[in-house]
Amino acid sequence: SDTARMSVPFDLQTPERTRLSIVGRDILTVRQFDRDTLHYLFGQAHEMRKMVDRVGHFELLKGKVMAALFYEPSTRTSSSFIGAMQRLGGSVIPITSVKDSSVAKGETLADTIRTMEQYSDVIVLRHPAKGAAEEAAKASRKPVINAGDGVGEHPTQALLDAFTIREEMGSINNLTITMVGDLKHGRTVHSLATLLSKYGVTFNFVAPKSLAMPKEILDMVRENGAPFTELEVLDDVLPATDVLYVTRVQKERFASEEDYMAVKGLYCITAHTLTRAKEKMIVMHPLPRVDEIAPEVDSDPRAAYFRQMQYGMYVRMALLAMVLGKA
Amino acid sequence: SDTARMSVPFDLQTPERTRLSIVGRDILTVRQFDRDTLHYLFGQAHEMRKMVDRVGHFELLKGKVMAALFYEPSTRTSSSFIGAMQRLGGSVIPITSVKDSSVAKGETLADTIRTMEQYSDVIVLRHPAKGAAEEAAKASRKPVINAGDGVGEHPTQALLDAFTIREEMGSINNLTITMVGDLKHGRTVHSLATLLSKYGVTFNFVAPKSLAMPKEILDMVRENGAPFTELEVLDDVLPATDVLYVTRVQKERFASEEDYMAVKGLYCITAHTLTRAKEKMIVMHPLPRVDEIAPEVDSDPRAAYFRQMQYGMYVRMALLAMVLGKA
Amino acid sequence: SDTARMSVPFDLQTPERTRLSIVGRDILTVRQFDRDTLHYLFGQAHEMRKMVDRVGHFELLKGKVMAALFYEPSTRTSSSFIGAMQRLGGSVIPITSVKDSSVAKGETLADTIRTMEQYSDVIVLRHPAKGAAEEAAKASRKPVINAGDGVGEHPTQALLDAFTIREEMGSINNLTITMVGDLKHGRTVHSLATLLSKYGVTFNFVAPKSLAMPKEILDMVRENGAPFTELEVLDDVLPATDVLYVTRVQKERFASEEDYMAVKGLYCITAHTLTRAKEKMIVMHPLPRVDEIAPEVDSDPRAAYFRQMQYGMYVRMALLAMVLGKA
Repeated sequence: SDTARMSVPFDLQTPERTRLSIVGRDILTVRQFDRDTLHYLFGQAHEMRKMVDRVGHFELLKGKVMAALFYEPSTRTSSSFIGAMQRLGGSVIPITSVKDSSVAKGETLADTIRTMEQYSDVIVLRHPAKGAAEEAAKASRKPVINAGDGVGEHPTQALLDAFTIREEMGSINNLTITMVGDLKHGRTVHSLATLLSKYGVTFNFVAPKSLAMPKEILDMVRENGAPFTELEVLDDVLPATDVLYVTRVQKERFASEEDYMAVKGLYCITAHTLTRAKEKMIVMHPLPRVDEIAPEVDSDPRAAYFRQMQYGMYVRMALLAMVLGKA
Repeated sequence: SDTARMSVPFDLQTPERTRLSIVGRDILTVRQFDRDTLHYLFGQAHEMRKMVDRVGHFELLKGKVMAALFYEPSTRTSSSFIGAMQRLGGSVIPITSVKDSSVAKGETLADTIRTMEQYSDVIVLRHPAKGAAEEAAKASRKPVINAGDGVGEHPTQALLDAFTIREEMGSINNLTITMVGDLKHGRTVHSLATLLSKYGVTFNFVAPKSLAMPKEILDMVRENGAPFTELEVLDDVLPATDVLYVTRVQKERFASEEDYMAVKGLYCITAHTLTRAKEKMIVMHPLPRVDEIAPEVDSDPRAAYFRQMQYGMYVRMALLAMVLGKA
Repeated sequence: SDTARMSVPFDLQTPERTRLSIVGRDILTVRQFDRDTLHYLFGQAHEMRKMVDRVGHFELLKGKVMAALFYEPSTRTSSSFIGAMQRLGGSVIPITSVKDSSVAKGETLADTIRTMEQYSDVIVLRHPAKGAAEEAAKASRKPVINAGDGVGEHPTQALLDAFTIREEMGSINNLTITMVGDLKHGRTVHSLATLLSKYGVTFNFVAPKSLAMPKEILDMVRENGAPFTELEVLDDVLPATDVLYVTRVQKERFASEEDYMAVKGLYCITAHTLTRAKEKMIVMHPLPRVDEIAPEVDSDPRAAYFRQMQYGMYVRMALLAMVLGKA
């Protein structure tokens, strides 16, 4: 938000320059992260994980105040950010029902943001309108973190997904990533495919034709040099899969109940499905899940979707510490 | 929730074993508390009371995070838990409008709990459905504290009621406890009668016939060896009463307005009522009160119902410290 | 709330007596502040400002708990109080949806307050009904701070406005204050005019006839010896103005759309308007603003309305510290 914060001395060594490149910056899109910055972020998130495991908390952000400004409810995301800030000793102004509030009445987003920045050191914003985070960042002198702006971006989701893979599989490089379900509508898989395609991975995109990965994402993946295959069934590619990323197939996306029922079973992961998967692979899901993964899978050590939530907290801890100049 | 946490070494002395018996455990029902554990809990709650009186707070739970997951609003209970956690230096993720949130949409309670446990060290759950707390505890590796599950249990209410009696009267043993009002529907009086019946108390149950104490509670009280009398009017038993526990008589419970009006006055406590009570006795009420206790009674030192709220905070401080292994 | 707290030893020197005069007291109205107390308050608020600028936070209220009891939403005010408490190391029980809560059902405000005081050290109350804060203060042994009670008072708003003028202009004494817009309905301008009239200022009240400053406020201003002029247009008085306080002119206040449109433009501040203003003057607004101040004005250094929000946090920090006996 502040142009002064963006001028980084160029004679610094890479790690220090990378670190500085994010201090005071807004987090708006995954596209702003190059591999150096991701490497630094994931390293910091890993340190957060070790710290929480060993001592539970650390006063790194003591006295810092985070405004959690949620124009639509998202308990999962807001709880993750609130927990992250608190584990670092910081405090939180929770504003989770902006809708009902007088602030919202006729006031522009920019004015609300300019008010909140008076009280806080960093603003986490969830908003239903695409572009809202960028608009907020323009108005704010304090860093703004995009926690989802409608059909726009949800960068911390993609970052936590990538960090989950790194922590669970040791590295992201050269893995086979299979995404399955509704690949057309999910901003989650779009951002993640974009991010991972920089790591030399191989993709399988498994979806019914009507819910296939959009052309612009495929183009970007191709540009980044990541090979991919499009399929309608999972069977053939499951045995070689390192990461199975499952997304929800929503009934509302289909023309008729029959169309939905015809397809639904194909993308439901059961204990039986996993008998054909590698022993060392993981199943991920952005949650909430409904029928896409049977509850019986939860007890399989390869089911990583709840651990994924915890990795999310570590990534958000690292991001908060970094934008506030403390990591 | 975690079987590993439940294995207590049996060669330990009783107090230490009692202490350990609750570390990492869920708090689901008053039935899980034997007299040793209650003794230990009340001792800890008493220490909390002294500490708050003297210094206001203590960093016992610094860095610990409590998720307050309220599926129905209960300002009194959530504020008490939040205040308790904060007085011990811990922090809180407040989730008080789960209804509106995307977490709730189609997600099972178990999945929501498995998500929240990733961010927190202990989960306080309020839910409208009986059995919800037990279901949550099964899903969670972190301790779950039941803050009321519909017509099920509300164990911390019964514990705070018992602690109030202990602090105000010196001891619970051998007191005469008179419960008055709607004894049929209140889970509060059911849990409390169950709990107190282990302390050699004598009960008077004063209610209109249609709102009498249910047979299964009377059976349990009898089993525990506590003598009781059922009455329809308070007059005869008031002079010998040590603890007068008043509950709300709700108009909706009666067939007609006349039935209600006929009964209402009988169970309303006024300054005049108390002229016939002991000098050293207390009046309790779970709150909110409406007409059952006249405002004029508030200034009587025997009116303990607001102090009761404060004892509630101490009991919750003790429980939080105990399940988190810090007391 | 507590009469004992109000007896201040009279042989103390003035500053100490002034300080003590507010310890443990309720903050209900601007009328309770004499110039000595205001001087002390603004000095403390100035210290808070320096402290936040230099180190960001200070553990002055560590272990203290503030209940934020909002019977109607006001994100701006609640966030400011929450941020203030947290920057001083204190913690907050946020109760921002009392409406929906069981506490509200049939329970008197006094009973709710008597419950909340059991958990907290200070209660911040926002309520739609005039007189609610005073009623709450009578019920409470803990200090109550009025954060707005309907058409009643909103004392911290007037205090922050006065503090803004002091910080931005060096002093309040002898300034020319021009208030413009709807001067009939705004409790903000009524309280502020009352407060400032003690400082030897000169007022211009600029409003359409139908929205002029009420007679009782004019009487009070006159009594306090502050000269004032009533006008319908801003033009003549703008060049001599030190503080231009703009308020919202709401369409609903007019008989017809035409009446509104005829007047609206007259009270809208643009970059062009300010070409005729002093170089050293400030533009204030209680926010939210809609059309009264053009966005182009925001980049003018004289636009003080967002800084005003920050001064609000400092004033609330000072008040919290003072009522809790720590400043």
